[in-house]
Amino acid sequence: MGQGVAEAIAKKNDLLQNILGEKVRIVGAFDSSSHVLNRSGLDPMDLLRIKMANRNLGKKTTEDIKDILPRIEYDTLVEMTPTNIKNGQPGLGHIRSALSAGHNVVTSNKGPLALKFREISKLAKKNNAMLRFEASVGGATPVINLASELLICENIYSIRGIMNGTCNYILNRMETEGMQFEPALREAQQMGYAETDPSYDIDGIDSACKVAILANAIMGKDITVNDVSRTGIRGINLAAVNLAGQDKKVVRLIGEVTDRGGEVSPRLIPVGHPLSIGGTLNTFSIQTDLAGEITVAGRGAGRAETSSAVMSDIFAVMRERQAQSHRT
Amino acid sequence: MGQGVAEAIAKKNDLLQNILGEKVRIVGAFDSSSHVLNRSGLDPMDLLRIKMANRNLGKKTTEDIKDILPRIEYDTLVEMTPTNIKNGQPGLGHIRSALSAGHNVVTSNKGPLALKFREISKLAKKNNAMLRFEASVGGATPVINLASELLICENIYSIRGIMNGTCNYILNRMETEGMQFEPALREAQQMGYAETDPSYDIDGIDSACKVAILANAIMGKDITVNDVSRTGIRGINLAAVNLAGQDKKVVRLIGEVTDRGGEVSPRLIPVGHPLSIGGTLNTFSIQTDLAGEITVAGRGAGRAETSSAVMSDIFAVMRERQAQSHRT
Repeated sequence: MGQGVAEAIAKKNDLLQNILGEKVRIVGAFDSSSHVLNRSGLDPMDLLRIKMANRNLGKKTTEDIKDILPRIEYDTLVEMTPTNIKNGQPGLGHIRSALSAGHNVVTSNKGPLALKFREISKLAKKNNAMLRFEASVGGATPVINLASELLICENIYSIRGIMNGTCNYILNRMETEGMQFEPALREAQQMGYAETDPSYDIDGIDSACKVAILANAIMGKDITVNDVSRTGIRGINLAAVNLAGQDKKVVRLIGEVTDRGGEVSPRLIPVGHPLSIGGTLNTFSIQTDLAGEITVAGRGAGRAETSSAVMSDIFAVMRERQAQSHRT
Repeated sequence: MGQGVAEAIAKKNDLLQNILGEKVRIVGAFDSSSHVLNRSGLDPMDLLRIKMANRNLGKKTTEDIKDILPRIEYDTLVEMTPTNIKNGQPGLGHIRSALSAGHNVVTSNKGPLALKFREISKLAKKNNAMLRFEASVGGATPVINLASELLICENIYSIRGIMNGTCNYILNRMETEGMQFEPALREAQQMGYAETDPSYDIDGIDSACKVAILANAIMGKDITVNDVSRTGIRGINLAAVNLAGQDKKVVRLIGEVTDRGGEVSPRLIPVGHPLSIGGTLNTFSIQTDLAGEITVAGRGAGRAETSSAVMSDIFAVMRERQAQSHRT
């Protein structure tokens, strides 16, 4: 995923220069076992070539990354390690290290946000640092920035959505091809949508993480993924899908955030409703007082898609930094 | 529509005070034949009560509004007169009057934007004034601000959408209820969706206005509604809708903006695609380089919905004014 961000920076640096009058300068890059640092800037395409050729970035990392970070001169940490839903590590340690020193953080990592949202958002505030995480929910779909920026004048009552593309693919194949659950799941695995251990997707854990993040980030709640009530799609058989179809409805795994808390469960959705869409898209419907229901949909996963969300957060951080420097 | 904005201001002024440290002060209000001015501020709920009780706002307007505006001390004109697709008047005159004196404009009026976009956006730029028009396309749906703010790092290739709720209602009734075109149109008229002269909706004129505005505002084109190639839905009969249905497709009136220009025409859309939704929603799918396809949907019309978009633009103007005052 980090390689996608390097690609996006290479692709968009001229645009940033045009709009903001400055480019992103990469002063360090880390993978799981190696890293490279350069205060005067690393070329993103060089980084990609080195990683591709050598399968590492150069120097073997012998220390915990969270202990290396304080010795680097940098502005913003882009944290892209994989989600760990047990304790949020190692991402949580990296994010704490950056924020506590007043560095901004842009992350795609659901773990720290689904487990320790309140702690790290307080840490950011206390140290006057920005914490942005559009990529953590819905991949390319700009649901967080839409809700918190474009709908800033709205009272948001609830958010409902298709938050896991793998489950939606399986349910959609059952309804359109008459497949049973198991073969549809195997097909999703063969297509590379589902993990070998599919529990994270089909038992609703991934959706529950996103529900927790949206509840905290948009509706001001203080919950973790473990507070989200959760039913997956293992219990959905073809008969249930067909019965729904006779009533012009489809079965969808819906994540929901309301004032009462978070829930993930299969629901019946009328055909033609924005939450009835097929494929692997993520879709979020936001209920508000003036605008009514606003829905946003996009690709929930993928390297370019995730880097798109990360890039929009990097842009926002750069613009806000400039605004702050004007104010002071 | 102006009454909806007054209601929204009354409802949201405390929120604005909280976020921005200032409220909207209404220093003048106009309807088609009367007006009221007060430099120290008019209470929006008082305005609504007066308008409701007397069917006017007080003083009879004997002059052209565009000639009254220069004598008022104000910051931002909220222009909500009805769309006139022939020459954009009287909205165009009001907008020119405001922008040429350096006042900001927030408008829901498609006419001036679909006919004279380049002229008035240049006028705004020249006079260092803001021109915002989220409400002119898609009602509550934040498609313009989504594309121009949240997707600012993306290369936008094209925009396709269901841009007219009335047509979508008619097509949806044909496919779900087996109705012929004429009775479905009469039903839409009885429900208050379609005008007595339905040509503006069903011949695609309304959609073509939105296509022109999106082409100009988001894709940097310089076109008018008259440059948009246009086929409406009068020629769609039940047999065509049923044939599409047998192939798991629906007929939708799609507005499209690409690098080649604008087009409105009926298209076949696969069931389950974001552009297959039913009802009167407006839906816009934006094709980009990194994010892929991002879709946003919402209510395309209605008093509260339009005022939601106007309110978000008023907020953006207030915030940008504050940022500018910090920079100078």
